[in-house]
Amino acid sequence: MTSVQVRGRAERVLAMLDERGLEQMMVSDRSNIRWLTGFSGSAGVLIVSKRGHQFITDSRYTDQARDQLDSSGATDIGVVTARTLADRNLAISEAASGSPLGAEASIVPQSEWSSLSAHAELVAADGLLGQLRRAKDESEIALIAKAANIASETLSEVAPMLVAGVSEREIRDELEYRMRKLGADGPSYETIVASGPTNAALPHARPTARQFEGGDTVVIDVGALVDGYHSDMTRTFVVGGPSDEQQRWYDLVLASQTAGLQAVSEGVCGSEVDRACRSVFEDAGLVDLFVHGTGHGVGLDIHEEPFLGASASAELMAGDVVTVEPGLYRVGTGGIRIEDLVVVTSDGHRNLTTHPKDTPCPPSPRTI
Amino acid sequence: MTSVQVRGRAERVLAMLDERGLEQMMVSDRSNIRWLTGFSGSAGVLIVSKRGHQFITDSRYTDQARDQLDSSGATDIGVVTARTLADRNLAISEAASGSPLGAEASIVPQSEWSSLSAHAELVAADGLLGQLRRAKDESEIALIAKAANIASETLSEVAPMLVAGVSEREIRDELEYRMRKLGADGPSYETIVASGPTNAALPHARPTARQFEGGDTVVIDVGALVDGYHSDMTRTFVVGGPSDEQQRWYDLVLASQTAGLQAVSEGVCGSEVDRACRSVFEDAGLVDLFVHGTGHGVGLDIHEEPFLGASASAELMAGDVVTVEPGLYRVGTGGIRIEDLVVVTSDGHRNLTTHPKDTPCPPSPRTI
Repeated sequence: MTSVQVRGRAERVLAMLDERGLEQMMVSDRSNIRWLTGFSGSAGVLIVSKRGHQFITDSRYTDQARDQLDSSGATDIGVVTARTLADRNLAISEAASGSPLGAEASIVPQSEWSSLSAHAELVAADGLLGQLRRAKDESEIALIAKAANIASETLSEVAPMLVAGVSEREIRDELEYRMRKLGADGPSYETIVASGPTNAALPHARPTARQFEGGDTVVIDVGALVDGYHSDMTRTFVVGGPSDEQQRWYDLVLASQTAGLQAVSEGVCGSEVDRACRSVFEDAGLVDLFVHGTGHGVGLDIHEEPFLGASASAELMAGDVVTVEPGLYRVGTGGIRIEDLVVVTSDGHRNLTTHPKDTPCPPSPRTI
Repeated sequence: MTSVQVRGRAERVLAMLDERGLEQMMVSDRSNIRWLTGFSGSAGVLIVSKRGHQFITDSRYTDQARDQLDSSGATDIGVVTARTLADRNLAISEAASGSPLGAEASIVPQSEWSSLSAHAELVAADGLLGQLRRAKDESEIALIAKAANIASETLSEVAPMLVAGVSEREIRDELEYRMRKLGADGPSYETIVASGPTNAALPHARPTARQFEGGDTVVIDVGALVDGYHSDMTRTFVVGGPSDEQQRWYDLVLASQTAGLQAVSEGVCGSEVDRACRSVFEDAGLVDLFVHGTGHGVGLDIHEEPFLGASASAELMAGDVVTVEPGLYRVGTGGIRIEDLVVVTSDGHRNLTTHPKDTPCPPSPRTI
């Protein structure tokens, strides 16, 4: 698989800057830099400017930067090595050439902003890149799909291990180990394995040493990371099979998730997807147990634009990659959440999550 | 093992603030908050004030904060729930009571600093916590020692797998999987497994799919995370045993590291430890191949005060936990680094790293 090609993206930033009356900006956010250059390291700032683009980094990263920019097609971006903080400020100042310089005020620490302000006129310019990064191209979608497939396949391997006596952490360990064996660079985020009447009732629980017991709901929220791109998926199982109430909840969450997916299409407002999910729970009198938003964008960040919630105002666009993940949570009963990752298309969506979701029953343990 | 007890730490911050003419500060850095409260979550700010301490977080974390503050002995710190950003700014403003409020300008983003400045007079107050966190107490050292033991034991399990045909990533995967099995919460940082003439010559290489070949140096830099505390260790092996030059390099690095360790003691300047390591390489005419600093502090962060390099000016104090990690690197030959983690004492140091370092020969593969 060749690298994602980034050529032309910096020009799209320039066009958006132009609408704000700016000729240039300094990009500090790591994912924004990666999207514009292909650079995956942890130090450096990118100057996008009408007068030419420059990536300013330190000597540890010069070779890596040149290699990654070349293989990503960012051959129009120069690489500048700054050995000290003073060198770096000077390089930024020279690139700015006395004109106002947009900067990500929500990323740049106050002390850095303050010291740079002696060298350049900084202007807050947040949010532009988040908008541009929304519509994924085919090579980006291919990486996200690969990550999603790895997570699905791994969960198929691990689901038969969901039996009484096994701990949340043991399942987390197996998932993360096996995702890498299948080609992931690592987990996409801190894997959630949340079980039983208390832990599973917390949407963002962290895996503990708790051992499964018969009748536990087990919420597994797991994704893989491939070349910087994330996947995101949740499946819920009931150890030993569901009670009547758990089956009813499961059917409701699946109906809610199906309704949400059906609502996804280019031009639809994020709040409409949320409404579709929520209305199923309203009809069942359980909407108060759905305590989080319906979904979010996924790409170089695990949480990015657009967000799908009751107050979301953005319309979905073709190429958005978003989660749809309704759930119900109550201490005592536990929790049920079902989450797929989909690409928005002109007439609906394409589901990247292949793991089955028709039943909360884990497959029988296999004889090893 | 009971939680690290934090009572009294906030008062030490107040004493340092008093020297700067401040009565209060807002702590935003996650590790600083954890050190002062025991809170391990990812959202919230702590106000340390003569008028009473308050931890301001959102509703997702209120219960966790109360539990963790109680079990850490931070019963004198109130927990305040802020539902919105406006609520949060208001809570900070009320806590500040019109007096100047210290803040971590190197952590707080410009946009947050700017919006808070409408509510409180912010004054940059960086570095105080980094100094206070240096001298570890016995419960902190016990956690770091536990993390170090887990990493040592794991490396003993994995070292026999260092044979031709196995990849860097496979070894990384085994190390991280097995550290968790032995009780780690995860890796302390991105595990380095760097092999052969090119990768091992990069001090901060990331594991690749490269497979080992006979004669490769393999640099393994691995640590465990336990209750927020990190460990850090490097060992170097040569697949199939070293050449004469590799053995000479190994002996030199070990002599350099031994000299560095012997220099460590309360009251010694960080630059003296660096000098002790570097002079062994100077005598051998190889000092240009030692391309990084000698060591750094380790605790709630993997890199923290004090730093041991040529320009370090801080004197070591009893309770500092620092690495000593000289190395030699050259494309073609590969790399050799040996790193231990030690506690500084009044008459020298206590070494927390138990893994042997007398030879670069990996143990023979065991029959499984």
